[in-house]
Amino acid sequence: MTPFVAEVIGTAILILLGGGVVANVVLNKTIGNNSGWIVITTGWALAVYVAVVIAGPYSGAHINPAVTVSLAVAGSFSWSEVPMYILAQMLGAMIGATTVWLTYKSHFDETEDADTKKAVFCTAPAIRNTFTNFFSEVIGTFVLLFTIFYFTDATINDTKSVVGLGSLGALPVAFLVWSIGLSLGGTTGYAINPARDLGPRIMHAILPIKNKAKSDWSYSWIPVLGPLVGGVIAALLMLGLS
Amino acid sequence: MTPFVAEVIGTAILILLGGGVVANVVLNKTIGNNSGWIVITTGWALAVYVAVVIAGPYSGAHINPAVTVSLAVAGSFSWSEVPMYILAQMLGAMIGATTVWLTYKSHFDETEDADTKKAVFCTAPAIRNTFTNFFSEVIGTFVLLFTIFYFTDATINDTKSVVGLGSLGALPVAFLVWSIGLSLGGTTGYAINPARDLGPRIMHAILPIKNKAKSDWSYSWIPVLGPLVGGVIAALLMLGLS
Amino acid sequence: MTPFVAEVIGTAILILLGGGVVANVVLNKTIGNNSGWIVITTGWALAVYVAVVIAGPYSGAHINPAVTVSLAVAGSFSWSEVPMYILAQMLGAMIGATTVWLTYKSHFDETEDADTKKAVFCTAPAIRNTFTNFFSEVIGTFVLLFTIFYFTDATINDTKSVVGLGSLGALPVAFLVWSIGLSLGGTTGYAINPARDLGPRIMHAILPIKNKAKSDWSYSWIPVLGPLVGGVIAALLMLGLS
Amino acid sequence: MTPFVAEVIGTAILILLGGGVVANVVLNKTIGNNSGWIVITTGWALAVYVAVVIAGPYSGAHINPAVTVSLAVAGSFSWSEVPMYILAQMLGAMIGATTVWLTYKSHFDETEDADTKKAVFCTAPAIRNTFTNFFSEVIGTFVLLFTIFYFTDATINDTKSVVGLGSLGALPVAFLVWSIGLSLGGTTGYAINPARDLGPRIMHAILPIKNKAKSDWSYSWIPVLGPLVGGVIAALLMLGLS
Repeated sequence: MTPFVAEVIGTAILILLGGGVVANVVLNKTIGNNSGWIVITTGWALAVYVAVVIAGPYSGAHINPAVTVSLAVAGSFSWSEVPMYILAQMLGAMIGATTVWLTYKSHFDETEDADTKKAVFCTAPAIRNTFTNFFSEVIGTFVLLFTIFYFTDATINDTKSVVGLGSLGALPVAFLVWSIGLSLGGTTGYAINPARDLGPRIMHAILPIKNKAKSDWSYSWIPVLGPLVGGVIAALLMLGLS
Repeated sequence: MTPFVAEVIGTAILILLGGGVVANVVLNKTIGNNSGWIVITTGWALAVYVAVVIAGPYSGAHINPAVTVSLAVAGSFSWSEVPMYILAQMLGAMIGATTVWLTYKSHFDETEDADTKKAVFCTAPAIRNTFTNFFSEVIGTFVLLFTIFYFTDATINDTKSVVGLGSLGALPVAFLVWSIGLSLGGTTGYAINPARDLGPRIMHAILPIKNKAKSDWSYSWIPVLGPLVGGVIAALLMLGLS
Repeated sequence: MTPFVAEVIGTAILILLGGGVVANVVLNKTIGNNSGWIVITTGWALAVYVAVVIAGPYSGAHINPAVTVSLAVAGSFSWSEVPMYILAQMLGAMIGATTVWLTYKSHFDETEDADTKKAVFCTAPAIRNTFTNFFSEVIGTFVLLFTIFYFTDATINDTKSVVGLGSLGALPVAFLVWSIGLSLGGTTGYAINPARDLGPRIMHAILPIKNKAKSDWSYSWIPVLGPLVGGVIAALLMLGLS
Repeated sequence: MTPFVAEVIGTAILILLGGGVVANVVLNKTIGNNSGWIVITTGWALAVYVAVVIAGPYSGAHINPAVTVSLAVAGSFSWSEVPMYILAQMLGAMIGATTVWLTYKSHFDETEDADTKKAVFCTAPAIRNTFTNFFSEVIGTFVLLFTIFYFTDATINDTKSVVGLGSLGALPVAFLVWSIGLSLGGTTGYAINPARDLGPRIMHAILPIKNKAKSDWSYSWIPVLGPLVGGVIAALLMLGLS
C-alpha cells in the first residue's frame, strides 16, 4: 500500500466502524438500538484500533487532518505531504460514510427523525454555543495530539516491527480515543477530526437519504477548525516543553 | 493437539461462550437477563479470545470457514486442508451449541418465545431484506479478514513463541471482533462465520427443544454465503494491494 | 512473601474486589446501584487481575482450590502442597468477605432483602435444579482450567520476569474470567472456585449481619464440588490430548 | 519536562478526563447523560491511563499525594521531593477542574441541582458516616498502593524504554483503578487521591458557578487523610513482607 491508499482505506474503515456504531445505537429496529454511550464510545475507540492496525505500517495511520497538520507543525512530518494526506482522509471518510449508509439502508428507511439520521454522519452540539462548542473540540483534540506526542517510541514504531508488540502496538491510541469520547464527548460528540465530520457531512448532503435534515453548514466549521487549532496548540506546547 | 482436534475444540469453545452470552442476555430468569448489547458484543469478542488462545498454536485458530477459505485464496493456507478444517469447524460449532443448550436448559424451559430460543443458536435479520442482509454479512466479514491480513507477523506467530507476547497475542483478533459486533452487528447479528450460524442452526433443528421456532432455512444461506464472499473479496483486495 | 501468605493475600484481594462489586451493584443507596451485569463481570475479571498481579510471582496465584487441584492432577503442582494452598485460599476468602462487609456496612444496614445481602457473599442459582446447577459449575470451571493449561509459557512465567510483559502477563486470565462470567455466569453466578463461595458463605453465617438469610447449606456443595470436577476433567482432557 | 511540570500536566489531564466523565454522565443535556457506572469507572481508569502515559517517563506519574507519600515511606522516593510533588499535583488538579468547568459550562448552566454540579468536582459519601467513609477511602487506597508495590519492574520501568512495552506499560495501573472504582467506589466515590478531591473542591468554592452547593468542608478531610493512611499502611505491609 502507498501512504495515499493507506490513508484512504484507514479513514474509510474508521468511518465505517465509527459511523456504524452510531447507526446501530440510534436508528430504528437495529439489534443494538438504544444501547448507550458505552457502546458508542467503545465502538469509536475500536474503530480507531482497526484503522491503525491496517494503515499504521504504511502511512503512520494519521486518518485525521488534525494529526497530519500537528505532526507537520511538530516537525515530524513533511509539509509537502500534508495536502495529499488530507485529500486521502477526506476521500476515505466519504467512502466510509457511504458504506455505513448502504449497510444500514433498511434502518435509515425505518427511521423518521431527520436529525437522528444525520447523527450517523456528522456531529451536532448538545447545546449550541459557538464559544463552548469550539472550545470543546479544541480541548478534545489537544488531549489527543498532546498524548500522541508522548507515546513512547516503542509503541509508535512497533506496528512496523516483527519482533515487538505487533498489532497490540495500536492499542494506546484506541484507549486514548476511548477516554476522550467518554470524558469530553458529552458536549459536541467529539469530532476531534475534520475529515471524520466534514467528509460524512458532504455525503449526507449528496446521498439520496429519505426525509433528511439540512446539513447544518453554519456549524460545520467548528468540528473542522476546532480540531486543527487544538492539535496545533498541542504541537506548540510539546515543542515548548522539549 | 492435531489441527483437526484444535479446530473442533476451538470452535466448540467459541460457540459455547458466544451462544452462552446470548442465552444469558435473552433467556428468561438468567442473572444477566436483558443486560444489553455491550454484554453480548463483549461476550462474543472474549469467546474469540479464549478460542484463539487454545487453538492458535495448533491450527492457527481459524474457527471459521470464511477465514480458512480466505487464507487459501490468499495463498497462505493449503486448499487440500480446507475441507478438513471446515468439517472440524462445523463439528465444533454443533458441539458448542449443544453444550449451551445443556447449560441453560432450565432457562430454555422457562422461556416461551420461540424466536428468542432460536436466537441463542443462530442469527436472524432485524429487518428482512435479501440484499441488505447479504451486504451486511459481506461487509462485516470483509472487515474481519482484511484486518487479519494486515495483522503484523509478531502478533500472528507469537502465540507459538515463548519469548514473545504469549497469550496476549490473541487480543487483536478479539478487539477486531468486538469492533465488528458493536458497529456492524446491528443489522443481521454479525454471523461473519458460516460454521457459527449453520452448525447451531442444525442443532436447533435436531435438539428436543420445547416449543421451538422453525429453522428459517430460507435465510440460512445468507450467513453462510455472505461471509465467504466477504472474506474472498478481502483476500483479493489484499493481493491486489501487495 | 511465602506462597502461603501470597495465597492468603491474593484470595483476600480477589474476594474484596469481587464481593465489593456485587455489593456496589445490589445493595441499597450505593453509587453503583443497579448498574448491571457488565459492571459485575468486569469487576470480577479485574479482581482476578489484581490478585494475580500481586500473588503471581510468589505462589503462582492459584487463589482457587480448583486451580490447585487441577494443576496437581496435571502433574505441574506438588500434591503435598495442595492442603496448605487450599487452607490459605479459604482463609483469604474469609478475610476478603469480612472486609467487604466492613466497607459496605452502612449499605448492608440500609438493605432489607436478606437474599440480596447474602448475594454479596456467596452464589445462588437463578433456577434451582441440582443437575443443571452442578453442570453449570462444571462447565464454567472446565473452560477456566482448560484454557489456563493452554496459556503459552511466556504469559504464565512472565509475571516473574523483568524483561517480559511485566504485570500485563496477568491479563489473559482476567479476560478469561470476564468471558466465563459474561457467557456462563447466567445460571448459577459462576462460583467456579470453591474458596470463593464457601469461605464467604461461612463468614455470612458467622458475622452479625442484621436480618440475614439462611446459609443455604443444601446448595453449598455444588459451587465446591462442581468446580473441582470441572477442573479435574480439564486436566484429564489436556493430558489425553498431549 | 521537569518532574514538577510532568506532575502538573499529568494531574491536570487526570482531572480533566476524570471530572469530564462525571460531567458527561451527571449534568443535564449532555450526550452521555445518565449513561451509568460503567461509563464513569471506565472514564476514570482511562484518565489515569492517559495521565500516566504522558507523565510516566518524566516524573514517574504519581499524580496523587498518596502515591508520593507511600513511595517515600517505602524508601523508593526521596522525602525531600515530596512537597514539590504534592504542590504540583494540587496545582494540576485545580487546572484540570477549571478546564472541565469551561468545557461543560453550558451544561453546568442547564443543571439546577447544586449537589450534582459539585459532584463533577469532588466526592461525597452515599451514606454519611465518618467511620465507614474513612474506612472506605483507606481500603481503596490500600489496594491501589499495595498493588502498585507489586507491579513487576518491567511494567514500571518500561514507560521509559524503547525496546519494551512502550505506552502499553501504563495499562496495569489503569486496570487497577478500574477495579477499585467498580468494586470499592460505591460508598464514597473513590477519591483515593487527596489532590483529586481537594484541588477541585477548592476550585468549586472559588469559581463563579451559578447556584452552587456549599463546599462540605466538614467531609473534605476524609478523602485527604483516608488515602494517605491507606497508602502508608500498604507501604508498611509491603515492607513487613519483604
